[in-house]
Amino acid sequence: MNKFERARQVLDQINADGWLIICVEDSDVNSRFMLGVASHARNYVYVSRDGKHKILAVEMEAPMIQKSLEAKEIDAKVLVYKSADDLKTKLKEVIDQPRVALNFGEKVLDSEGSGYADYLRVGDYFSVKDLSPKTEFISSAPIIYELRSVKSASEQSDLINTCQSTLEILESVPEWVKLGMTERDIRAKIEYEYMKVGKPAFETIVATGPHSADPHHNTSMKKIKPGVLLIDTGLQIDEMCSDITWTFWVGKNPSEKFIKAYKALYKAKEVANEYYTDGTKNNIPAKKCRECLAELGYDHEKLYFHGLGHSLGFEAHDIGMRISHSVPDNFTLKENMVYTNEPGLYWQGEWGVRLEDDVIIGKNKCEQVTNVPFDPLTI
Amino acid sequence: MNKFERARQVLDQINADGWLIICVEDSDVNSRFMLGVASHARNYVYVSRDGKHKILAVEMEAPMIQKSLEAKEIDAKVLVYKSADDLKTKLKEVIDQPRVALNFGEKVLDSEGSGYADYLRVGDYFSVKDLSPKTEFISSAPIIYELRSVKSASEQSDLINTCQSTLEILESVPEWVKLGMTERDIRAKIEYEYMKVGKPAFETIVATGPHSADPHHNTSMKKIKPGVLLIDTGLQIDEMCSDITWTFWVGKNPSEKFIKAYKALYKAKEVANEYYTDGTKNNIPAKKCRECLAELGYDHEKLYFHGLGHSLGFEAHDIGMRISHSVPDNFTLKENMVYTNEPGLYWQGEWGVRLEDDVIIGKNKCEQVTNVPFDPLTI
Repeated sequence: MNKFERARQVLDQINADGWLIICVEDSDVNSRFMLGVASHARNYVYVSRDGKHKILAVEMEAPMIQKSLEAKEIDAKVLVYKSADDLKTKLKEVIDQPRVALNFGEKVLDSEGSGYADYLRVGDYFSVKDLSPKTEFISSAPIIYELRSVKSASEQSDLINTCQSTLEILESVPEWVKLGMTERDIRAKIEYEYMKVGKPAFETIVATGPHSADPHHNTSMKKIKPGVLLIDTGLQIDEMCSDITWTFWVGKNPSEKFIKAYKALYKAKEVANEYYTDGTKNNIPAKKCRECLAELGYDHEKLYFHGLGHSLGFEAHDIGMRISHSVPDNFTLKENMVYTNEPGLYWQGEWGVRLEDDVIIGKNKCEQVTNVPFDPLTI
Repeated sequence: MNKFERARQVLDQINADGWLIICVEDSDVNSRFMLGVASHARNYVYVSRDGKHKILAVEMEAPMIQKSLEAKEIDAKVLVYKSADDLKTKLKEVIDQPRVALNFGEKVLDSEGSGYADYLRVGDYFSVKDLSPKTEFISSAPIIYELRSVKSASEQSDLINTCQSTLEILESVPEWVKLGMTERDIRAKIEYEYMKVGKPAFETIVATGPHSADPHHNTSMKKIKPGVLLIDTGLQIDEMCSDITWTFWVGKNPSEKFIKAYKALYKAKEVANEYYTDGTKNNIPAKKCRECLAELGYDHEKLYFHGLGHSLGFEAHDIGMRISHSVPDNFTLKENMVYTNEPGLYWQGEWGVRLEDDVIIGKNKCEQVTNVPFDPLTI
């Protein structure tokens, strides 16, 4: 069943007449997710409960959208608008329905909220309310969750391919990284390889020495020195993203403290993986991981100050509650969701290690799509 | 005067107590514009009319933000929030004011509207309204317009440097582009060079043959063939973006039709440049450009179906009304605004040419920051 048909089913469940996506210069990835092609001008995707789907696009982009929908065997009418007034007239007609879902989240500051559906901008929200004052606009969160949280077989296959390409590039790192290159040089080279087959899923983090202790480090012009080198990177090919972190040692003879931390994280990651299973609470893998680190003698409350994983897919941070010990009990993992597993240990001012793999939630056992090197690689 | 002080002046004018920027994973570039550093977790920037500015950030990112603000000599308090509840408490206190400006646009479908200020997402909008129901939230459009439409001397200097770096990369294109490379290969190589010094300002368009007739072409896996090769590309270094289009001919002996179109566009671009001046209506350069093309025998209504230019700066499409023959009379250019000048001619199914330069609006004469080759380059 194609995405438009699946969305129609949810429209039935939530008793809505249509789902409207408003996208301006890539402001809402759900447009590309549904159309299969990036449209850069202002476009509207309307999935109709009655099956009469409509797209509003500029003349320059309509043929490209039409072609992409035909390739996906989606029956939707692509309407061209020629001016702002023309757009208003056509849009008004499309949304003149009692109940229409829009991509906004509710209670976005609460873990029970639907911040994941929050794409629509305020000015655009009021523009459709002005055009169709009688329409009741509701959150599309249940549609987005249904379409994007659990991955289809073809999405999983795309994920596996994307991860494979990413691993090949990461495996080549020790061959070409040299002392004296900057963090940016390394990021440029990795993303250059990505650009040949897809594009970066996010800005690659390259962190040398003390920078590796900062999980959100902005890749800098600092030169690579002997010691820890952490690379957190992801590739997007077509529909799916990878997100992988490898931590290397530059120079001979990694320190004992580094090897010990690396091995501990590898172990903790393996322990956590046992709980990346259908029906398990989102907080369990993270708790198990932390228990393991504690047993191995690490003060994880101080040294490991982020969650264990996040949903992965069409975006690097995809739809679905993260995996963390602080997630409430009412969130559970489902078969065929995709998550990262990325424990870390950080000594501020010194260095940090993070090992990150991508995992498909299984019925009783997960599928580990990537696997960081068992022993730390030296460069 | 720093950006925070300039924003305070506008707060005085619009009688608002503060300006709140809400940014989640780079959802609002104004956060980076104000802080000087990209913060990837949920952060809040509050510019206060009384000078007591506050930033709300996660623990992991607070030191980086603090350091950046200190380097810019901005006196602002960086508050760390540790949980959603903690965030709500602190945010409530910050915005408990009679009148606060938020980054949303009004009448975004109208040319007179402020769609350029539309960054805030709907769920976040309602979250602050819930937290502070008595506060009147107004659009920050006048602040964003004041801070970003006219460029400071240091921004202009950054722009000139960024353009220079971009030109050096474009000049090297004939040295390394070969038949049989794909459009993506070329984009990857150009963006690789960008990544060493900055990052792509947008996804580079590489269009061979008939693809060059589509101004919004998505760079594909198609191999470069003899004939037209159009590259529309931009680099961002720190604060400013370039946006340049060069059209090449692959092979010897460019066709006469191609050379004639190239020369006509070069001429039309020069004619338009005469009107990139302070106080000139935004539609005038575009009208003059089209008059020139008509005189040279081109059916511009059919062959040239986009505007002449857009504002350029911190984003590739920056704050300020575009330059087009269809813009109403009440928009005028101002000294030290930055615009592109990019006429094109497109024969659907065959090929197209676009020449794009970046220009600083001057008092009586513009400063042309870039200049496409006078004669088309062959590869």
